[in-house]
Amino acid sequence: MIVVLEPDCSLKNKAGVVRFIESHGGRLLVSEIGNETQIGLIGNEAQALAEELEGMPGVAQIQAVAPPYPQVSRDHHPEPTEVRIGDVRIGGHEVVVMAGPCAVENEAQLESVGHAVAAAGARMLRGGAFKPRSSPYSFQGLGEEGLVLLAAVREQTGLPVVTEVVAPEDVDLVGRYADMLQIGARNMQNFRLLSEVGAQARPVLLKRGISSSIEELLLAAEYVVAAGNPQVVLCERGIRTFETTTRNTLDIGSVPVLKGRTHLPVIVDPSHAAGDRELVPHLARAAVAAGADGILVEVHNDPEVALSDGAQSLTLDGFSAMMDELRRVATSVDRHVAVPSASQTKA
Amino acid sequence: MIVVLEPDCSLKNKAGVVRFIESHGGRLLVSEIGNETQIGLIGNEAQALAEELEGMPGVAQIQAVAPPYPQVSRDHHPEPTEVRIGDVRIGGHEVVVMAGPCAVENEAQLESVGHAVAAAGARMLRGGAFKPRSSPYSFQGLGEEGLVLLAAVREQTGLPVVTEVVAPEDVDLVGRYADMLQIGARNMQNFRLLSEVGAQARPVLLKRGISSSIEELLLAAEYVVAAGNPQVVLCERGIRTFETTTRNTLDIGSVPVLKGRTHLPVIVDPSHAAGDRELVPHLARAAVAAGADGILVEVHNDPEVALSDGAQSLTLDGFSAMMDELRRVATSVDRHVAVPSASQTKA
Amino acid sequence: MIVVLEPDCSLKNKAGVVRFIESHGGRLLVSEIGNETQIGLIGNEAQALAEELEGMPGVAQIQAVAPPYPQVSRDHHPEPTEVRIGDVRIGGHEVVVMAGPCAVENEAQLESVGHAVAAAGARMLRGGAFKPRSSPYSFQGLGEEGLVLLAAVREQTGLPVVTEVVAPEDVDLVGRYADMLQIGARNMQNFRLLSEVGAQARPVLLKRGISSSIEELLLAAEYVVAAGNPQVVLCERGIRTFETTTRNTLDIGSVPVLKGRTHLPVIVDPSHAAGDRELVPHLARAAVAAGADGILVEVHNDPEVALSDGAQSLTLDGFSAMMDELRRVATSVDRHVAVPSASQTKA
Amino acid sequence: MIVVLEPDCSLKNKAGVVRFIESHGGRLLVSEIGNETQIGLIGNEAQALAEELEGMPGVAQIQAVAPPYPQVSRDHHPEPTEVRIGDVRIGGHEVVVMAGPCAVENEAQLESVGHAVAAAGARMLRGGAFKPRSSPYSFQGLGEEGLVLLAAVREQTGLPVVTEVVAPEDVDLVGRYADMLQIGARNMQNFRLLSEVGAQARPVLLKRGISSSIEELLLAAEYVVAAGNPQVVLCERGIRTFETTTRNTLDIGSVPVLKGRTHLPVIVDPSHAAGDRELVPHLARAAVAAGADGILVEVHNDPEVALSDGAQSLTLDGFSAMMDELRRVATSVDRHVAVPSASQTKA
Repeated sequence: MIVVLEPDCSLKNKAGVVRFIESHGGRLLVSEIGNETQIGLIGNEAQALAEELEGMPGVAQIQAVAPPYPQVSRDHHPEPTEVRIGDVRIGGHEVVVMAGPCAVENEAQLESVGHAVAAAGARMLRGGAFKPRSSPYSFQGLGEEGLVLLAAVREQTGLPVVTEVVAPEDVDLVGRYADMLQIGARNMQNFRLLSEVGAQARPVLLKRGISSSIEELLLAAEYVVAAGNPQVVLCERGIRTFETTTRNTLDIGSVPVLKGRTHLPVIVDPSHAAGDRELVPHLARAAVAAGADGILVEVHNDPEVALSDGAQSLTLDGFSAMMDELRRVATSVDRHVAVPSASQTKA
Repeated sequence: MIVVLEPDCSLKNKAGVVRFIESHGGRLLVSEIGNETQIGLIGNEAQALAEELEGMPGVAQIQAVAPPYPQVSRDHHPEPTEVRIGDVRIGGHEVVVMAGPCAVENEAQLESVGHAVAAAGARMLRGGAFKPRSSPYSFQGLGEEGLVLLAAVREQTGLPVVTEVVAPEDVDLVGRYADMLQIGARNMQNFRLLSEVGAQARPVLLKRGISSSIEELLLAAEYVVAAGNPQVVLCERGIRTFETTTRNTLDIGSVPVLKGRTHLPVIVDPSHAAGDRELVPHLARAAVAAGADGILVEVHNDPEVALSDGAQSLTLDGFSAMMDELRRVATSVDRHVAVPSASQTKA
Repeated sequence: MIVVLEPDCSLKNKAGVVRFIESHGGRLLVSEIGNETQIGLIGNEAQALAEELEGMPGVAQIQAVAPPYPQVSRDHHPEPTEVRIGDVRIGGHEVVVMAGPCAVENEAQLESVGHAVAAAGARMLRGGAFKPRSSPYSFQGLGEEGLVLLAAVREQTGLPVVTEVVAPEDVDLVGRYADMLQIGARNMQNFRLLSEVGAQARPVLLKRGISSSIEELLLAAEYVVAAGNPQVVLCERGIRTFETTTRNTLDIGSVPVLKGRTHLPVIVDPSHAAGDRELVPHLARAAVAAGADGILVEVHNDPEVALSDGAQSLTLDGFSAMMDELRRVATSVDRHVAVPSASQTKA
Repeated sequence: MIVVLEPDCSLKNKAGVVRFIESHGGRLLVSEIGNETQIGLIGNEAQALAEELEGMPGVAQIQAVAPPYPQVSRDHHPEPTEVRIGDVRIGGHEVVVMAGPCAVENEAQLESVGHAVAAAGARMLRGGAFKPRSSPYSFQGLGEEGLVLLAAVREQTGLPVVTEVVAPEDVDLVGRYADMLQIGARNMQNFRLLSEVGAQARPVLLKRGISSSIEELLLAAEYVVAAGNPQVVLCERGIRTFETTTRNTLDIGSVPVLKGRTHLPVIVDPSHAAGDRELVPHLARAAVAAGADGILVEVHNDPEVALSDGAQSLTLDGFSAMMDELRRVATSVDRHVAVPSASQTKA
């Protein structure tokens, strides 16, 4: 249930509504969208309370929650949201490319990759310091040491950093080093973590779960926004299907579907979908042509010895070649991909 | 088992090999690829015979079948195949657009659509006369009457016709009217039908089954080619997954995967994947950007009253607008989409 | 749209309704279910005609088609159907076990398996003479020679024969030898074939497609019944999912779902679902416990040398042991599995 | 890489091996299985170090990790593990039924359900106090208040309590009230949470993720065991497929597959798989027949008003009737389901 208050509802009336709900044992969640105030009624008594609330002063209407993600939906927010990280804007005219290694391994690797992707036109640096791995015996990332390296290469290249956070108790730590916090596919329904990144100020990159529906992805984004953080970028990265020639099946149709349902930006990770670097540029071109607002891609200076996901990481030359292709495709759909400038390669 | 004969193997030696196999109860399948002769050994005795054949005159080698689709594989045929229908060539520089209604309904409809798509740059006319439908109570197509209409509109527009054949006993009939025979997704593993279209001369458009792997699609194509018809075009049209916001999930990755494994052309049907006309141009652009050799798309002069698949059919204006977009995307990947000319709209 | 006529509607009134529909360009499909006559209205004009038909003499009501498989639905036919093959009844108290090799290979094999399964309590003999195979180079079955062997072993053991038919033009041939015609998973939506087996008198075993929904399975059964043959048995045999430790994923829930929606019997094929003989008895027991009316299982006298599906075929001893287990489980759910008798092993 | 030490390896030698690895920059993970010590070598240097370690005193062998879940695999631990919760043993002769509401709602509800399921033969009480929900606006559980109620009903009925924990920081809290900690499907790859429940003493019920492979489930269990807790029970609860007539598709084949690969007990949750109470007893019977060691099932005293999952919750009478069925099926496979006794209903 959503209680929509009148646009000019007085503070006194607002407080009255909230007090009424709380005194009757209801749980609630208040959100301000533009000048409209919505109160989400949750739990037990919602239906009963809703009926009584209908006539209270200041209440415009009671809505069954449809769609169930009111804050990320385009219904009440038709203009696209631009998410800003420093001078980078995701969701505008530019198709933003974020590139870097799957996992941060050491200083030499990260510097090599960071400078190369900056020189080729990447606008953000990606790299995992905390790696969720299926096996307890696989490399789990360098942890804070990796974050330090990411911050150092940001200083050298000027590229803002996006990196994954895997547990609520790490959010503060990661936020001290990173410019954008990534929620990985396996944690898309780690609701405690979603609420935690929703309660801090960094923009969030939310990856679709490997077997999550589009509706579930939008609901996960709603968790973040409902907790107070409207700066969310969604990322399609391939879903699990019966087909095994690619690591996952890139659901390219999710790009226009999501863009139709939400005002949040939508980017694509072709690396995890492909699982094979030969395929990555094809998927990246397709994503740009389909309307994606950005590309998140794995690049490694020496993929053969990468600690994780080497097979799907582009080489430095491969990345540069792909960027040339993406620039042309972006132009053909009236978007653009950055041309590298001196400021991006100041080291 | 594949018995590969020496390039200069004499007819006498070839006959000796065949006679030996047959006299020992083996079944075989001979194919000539370029100047190489391959004999597929099938059934019971293959392994035993293979060993004896190894030393026979004219035999170059015995191969375990890997990949199991030797004739459609790029291994022995690295150059891409161009399939020709009249002056249309699929698999070359041009991205060929085939357009028309899902089902042929009547003369007025087909003429309206046919002229419009020709005027917008389509190179072939599609339309179903025999419709496989999940329910026995759904419209099953006009049958031969539909074929007559297709042929008539071909005369008016100059566009060659591709249409579906659903049963072995209809192959002759459909072949008298159509320029290219389509095998629909539900019949991708109707092996008798595959063999039948493999034994006639018209090029074949083979659609991927809704839940068929890429390997199974290539094996289905091998059935057609092994029966004698090398003119096969493959078509990705979406697969069945857990996601339901699109009718099917377009497996965009299948385009580069297939292009890497086979020399046959690969096209994409965005209409069945999308199930919603708003999404079709996005998927079509993605397909061209990913390297598809063509697009097969549903267009209707009045989608609201279409007898089947109205929701996913483009309007005439929508098709024309999409063609403008595809021309730009094609150019960005060094391909081209036809610009309409007088000869295509001679009516 | 379904036009339901009054139970005592005169022939004259029936003819009047049909004539009216045809004279207005409607297409129709008449079916008699018990003493009720239903006319399926299809195509373009259905909605418009339906309104005019509402007041005609003899018309009881006009129904939107819900469910879309009126003849196989339990809605109009709540009592379960028993399908009879000789003295075997599927859909009654007995859980009927059909067993035999995947493919008929030769006389010795079939006799060995046939006698052994009869002696262990199987009630029907299965075995493929026409095998649909993914690869054109795989063993495709013995054809009519296989049918002759099946009929011979039926004479020896008294077990009726069920075997697959893969093309419309083979229906007569297979029907001359077999007691029940099987439609394989790959042909579940070969609608021409469904209509053809619907137009002959042998009972039909209809296997669910590897990626077909339960709704599509019921619609496929409706094709057979609508063509005149009410003797249809449905078979769950595993669906294609992301999980690969089993060949397919047995959808055990489909058994109670189907039993709730249709009056037709439902059996389970644990062999194709498992792909591994170790797993087969577990799945068979589960199927009986879940309410299946029968089990279709592959058994081979020497699985290691089977021409197809050897890995999933039970040995003769394994089959006998499984039958003992199934008898106990069947008893626990108030059903029974046959105990072998002299009449079943008359050779 | 797994370094296996000799059974009688001295502490000094163990320390030497560990020191060697650490001094060369390796990361490691030590686990004691019975009297065998295994050291998992992870990260970068594993291969290089492994070679040098081969000759060190105390080292028995170096194994490539195959299977990648050495501690939960049957390879080194062929006898089944029994997990004990009070006097309940999971993994032995008894098929253990755990029953209760999806969510703990209030005292009256939980007492009503608790006494009823105890009286019908349930051996453990389930009920969610922390509920992971797709929507931020759905009821998220009573939290600690729910735990208090669960503990109170345990006192009344004698049934040990299993309940879900959703975040690492809640593990201590939940462990103070519950006898067994459940990891829900959405958290199966929340590796931090897995490690946390692995580092405490309560047994763990690990549910398979909705789209997780059997291999991934075993790796998740390995996380728990590798962190020090060998008391893990696996739970199949349905996977996400294209079929939508059931909420999920119960992968019944996973029961024998898992039992073949791991020594850990395997139970089945028919409620989440079915999504419809009519189907639950069918799936539960199938699970017992297939070899499951237990059943986890949702029961509600008034399902129509349940705050979550009402449609799939059994009524009290329905549960009792199902228990009678399960007793018979269990007997047919030489297992047993508890008959209620005075001690279980001491209130």
